[in-house]
Amino acid sequence: MSATVGLALLPGVPSVPSGYPQPDAVVIGAGSGGLTVAVGLSSFGKRVRLIERAQVGGDCTNVGCIPSKALLHASALLGSAQPNQLSPVGTLAHVRRRRNHLRDEETSEFAKKKLIDLQFGTARILESGKVEVTGDNGATELIEAKHIIVATGSRPRRIPIEGLPAERYLTNEEIFEVEEPPNNLVIVGAGPVGLEMATAFRRLGTSVTVLEAAPQILPAVLPEAAAVLHRRLEADGIDLKPGMVAKRFDPAGNTLHVGPLAGGATGRVEDVDAVLVAVGRLPNSEGLGLEELGVETGHDGKVVVDGKGATSVENIWATGDVSTKGATTHAANAWGRRIIKAIVFPIAPAGKEPEHPAVTFTSPEVATIGVQPTKVPTDVRRVTYDLAKADRAYVDEVTDGIVVVDVRRFSGKILGATIVGPRAGELISVFSLAMKTGTRFQKWYGVVWPYPVYAQALGNVVDQFMLEHMKNLHKDFPRWLFGRLRRS
Amino acid sequence: MSATVGLALLPGVPSVPSGYPQPDAVVIGAGSGGLTVAVGLSSFGKRVRLIERAQVGGDCTNVGCIPSKALLHASALLGSAQPNQLSPVGTLAHVRRRRNHLRDEETSEFAKKKLIDLQFGTARILESGKVEVTGDNGATELIEAKHIIVATGSRPRRIPIEGLPAERYLTNEEIFEVEEPPNNLVIVGAGPVGLEMATAFRRLGTSVTVLEAAPQILPAVLPEAAAVLHRRLEADGIDLKPGMVAKRFDPAGNTLHVGPLAGGATGRVEDVDAVLVAVGRLPNSEGLGLEELGVETGHDGKVVVDGKGATSVENIWATGDVSTKGATTHAANAWGRRIIKAIVFPIAPAGKEPEHPAVTFTSPEVATIGVQPTKVPTDVRRVTYDLAKADRAYVDEVTDGIVVVDVRRFSGKILGATIVGPRAGELISVFSLAMKTGTRFQKWYGVVWPYPVYAQALGNVVDQFMLEHMKNLHKDFPRWLFGRLRRS
Repeated sequence: MSATVGLALLPGVPSVPSGYPQPDAVVIGAGSGGLTVAVGLSSFGKRVRLIERAQVGGDCTNVGCIPSKALLHASALLGSAQPNQLSPVGTLAHVRRRRNHLRDEETSEFAKKKLIDLQFGTARILESGKVEVTGDNGATELIEAKHIIVATGSRPRRIPIEGLPAERYLTNEEIFEVEEPPNNLVIVGAGPVGLEMATAFRRLGTSVTVLEAAPQILPAVLPEAAAVLHRRLEADGIDLKPGMVAKRFDPAGNTLHVGPLAGGATGRVEDVDAVLVAVGRLPNSEGLGLEELGVETGHDGKVVVDGKGATSVENIWATGDVSTKGATTHAANAWGRRIIKAIVFPIAPAGKEPEHPAVTFTSPEVATIGVQPTKVPTDVRRVTYDLAKADRAYVDEVTDGIVVVDVRRFSGKILGATIVGPRAGELISVFSLAMKTGTRFQKWYGVVWPYPVYAQALGNVVDQFMLEHMKNLHKDFPRWLFGRLRRS
Repeated sequence: MSATVGLALLPGVPSVPSGYPQPDAVVIGAGSGGLTVAVGLSSFGKRVRLIERAQVGGDCTNVGCIPSKALLHASALLGSAQPNQLSPVGTLAHVRRRRNHLRDEETSEFAKKKLIDLQFGTARILESGKVEVTGDNGATELIEAKHIIVATGSRPRRIPIEGLPAERYLTNEEIFEVEEPPNNLVIVGAGPVGLEMATAFRRLGTSVTVLEAAPQILPAVLPEAAAVLHRRLEADGIDLKPGMVAKRFDPAGNTLHVGPLAGGATGRVEDVDAVLVAVGRLPNSEGLGLEELGVETGHDGKVVVDGKGATSVENIWATGDVSTKGATTHAANAWGRRIIKAIVFPIAPAGKEPEHPAVTFTSPEVATIGVQPTKVPTDVRRVTYDLAKADRAYVDEVTDGIVVVDVRRFSGKILGATIVGPRAGELISVFSLAMKTGTRFQKWYGVVWPYPVYAQALGNVVDQFMLEHMKNLHKDFPRWLFGRLRRS
């Protein structure tokens, strides 16, 4: 453990009655964002009090990325040549065991950390520098610390479905506790959560219907990219119903009536065992005392933070789903790091905000980064490449896929990228690096991509871009040369 | 098709008796390198005569990357939940069909190209600018063109194995024609070819023994990285024998006697059906007239080329396995592009030579780039990361893997990287881009990698590097600050 850096020594604060030593910072929430900040600050010699209401690891470990990706992995092995084949029921139990193992490991790991004091309870900020923690037994404790980091995450948005019994209403908080795959599952919402669960449960043998209010699945993704996944999911036997929402549930016959957002029911799904609602998240920003302190929140309830992760009130910080910067584990992590930097090196500038990639772990994966409007602005060159034309796709018998890259026409600045295909989640990382470092797209020309990998498609996209670019060069070259000669 | 650029207009050359129009360039060999040059030059308006002795696509399409990766893909599906399961025999036939389809497509595609005249025959360079082509019927034709590109590739090095009947002696040129997987296959050479075929045939149900003269498999790779693959291949039931070579074959009992390079036989493999020899390549540089013309070749017979792909004789170029720059399809492609650039834009500088990544498509994949000596030089920081610690590895139940990155200690210049793990072939591409663009390793810090993908391991490696880097910063910061204050 490295020594205190000495740049941000804290003034002494009065001690409070507690079994733990006086902390330098209180972190509220032991999910991805909170753990990042706690570990980071402690590695710089700061003592951290980490308050957790429920379970270490937060949504990601318990009801999010970890069980969902473990389920996608395990369900893909069903019926494979692997030894010790699991049943669908065994697969679900296996995923829970793996999830619990990781959570227990994280919990004991953090409980052991010298400078992190993990405490279970509910926190409330009384004023800047003061947090009250209420334990399970109702006892309260006042903690004083210069810095308070709000990392309380989010919860699933629950929309009412008339007539649906509570035990058939699932969100990401209940789906991984299901012991037996339902015969017939309706998923409301064709975003990443909905489509990943559709994929996994289809592999477990469940009949899956997905409703999506928007006119396409993955409404946040370019239509031509969403269409690739649409075709593949349908080929896998998933019934996709864009433009449709759940209207009401009829318990006699277990019928879910569905229809367009505006208007009545126009169709139905029979014999529905369960409905998974995956229509977005709500930030856990209430009950923390933020409003009373005047901490600014957006109209969606998210805590507004700047490039350093600072809220509108000094020394109160926020990261993760509760904040305006995050909706994923990697965003919570990234902004957690910015908070660490801001606390440990307060005079350092925050630096350019990085682009956050997003990946949906369906088959194929869908990965995006940056901003790509449906209509291409005039100063932007959009290069679209059919991923199935890459030699790797040929040998893997992949017949559908897409890469769409938006580049500013003259400067070569990369504005955004969308990839649908195998390993897209890894490929988008090349863009993460290039966009963070400001590497212009023409600089990619001449990069040697190993043959035959999917990344070669990126080389083909660059070639397409350069071909356009070179066409201009042909016209511009004499002018450029003439200009140079005149100047010399 | 774009118009001729006008920078490299050719002087008129006397016409020769031929069914084809006078070309600007003769490309000898229609493999990866030759096709790249032919297509590239034609897209700049150059007329190209493309001479091929055997089959369009060269080794890569016919007896290399394409059938080997198609076989790795198809063999991995055996026994899976895929519909229309193939048998092992069916799998081999399927791979040939896929390979032939691609070759036929490439052949007809190039035969149709307006500015490329594909001609089957054997070429010999008579003097600079003159190539004689001998057709199957023995008729010869003299072709005159300013530029001659040698892209004749390589062939497998065949070492004698005493007593082994010719029909049991296989190389990459015969292995894909095998109709039925052998019960018992010995592979001589644990390089990429040997280990990929070991993997594929093991999946087809074959008993596989791999001999390697060097003390480790993948002798060109860091020992700690090769060790990861060694463990995994052994777990898959492949018998690996580093430090062993084939001594002699006893046809009674089909016994292959094996032993260390120096000394006699110390062991044996019984009931051997076939031996695949994969001990490197020899360049096809003979019989082309290169020696007579004084074109420089190395002691290994490879044609020496510079950063533009130029040989020691003006207007004779070489790319691919026949040259000193290439041993892979992507190298042939990269140097092919440099030749195109040099011919079309002769005044442009060649530019910095890119690093060539190399990937072995075993399970897991092994990917390398740059140079990594076994012993770390003092001015280099080697960061080693256990890939199994990445969260993606946890959910995928991957328990073994490694990332090793060499970075110059103070400048942060990346010197080389080795990755063993799933999707390593895609991950190495991030290094391809960074090394080509000179992006220093500390610039990777703050990149947001999507969660949870394998690329996050790269973020963890950067963190490890920065932790060391920051430790120095702690010491150096006051000195730096003091220096600044004195200067101000």
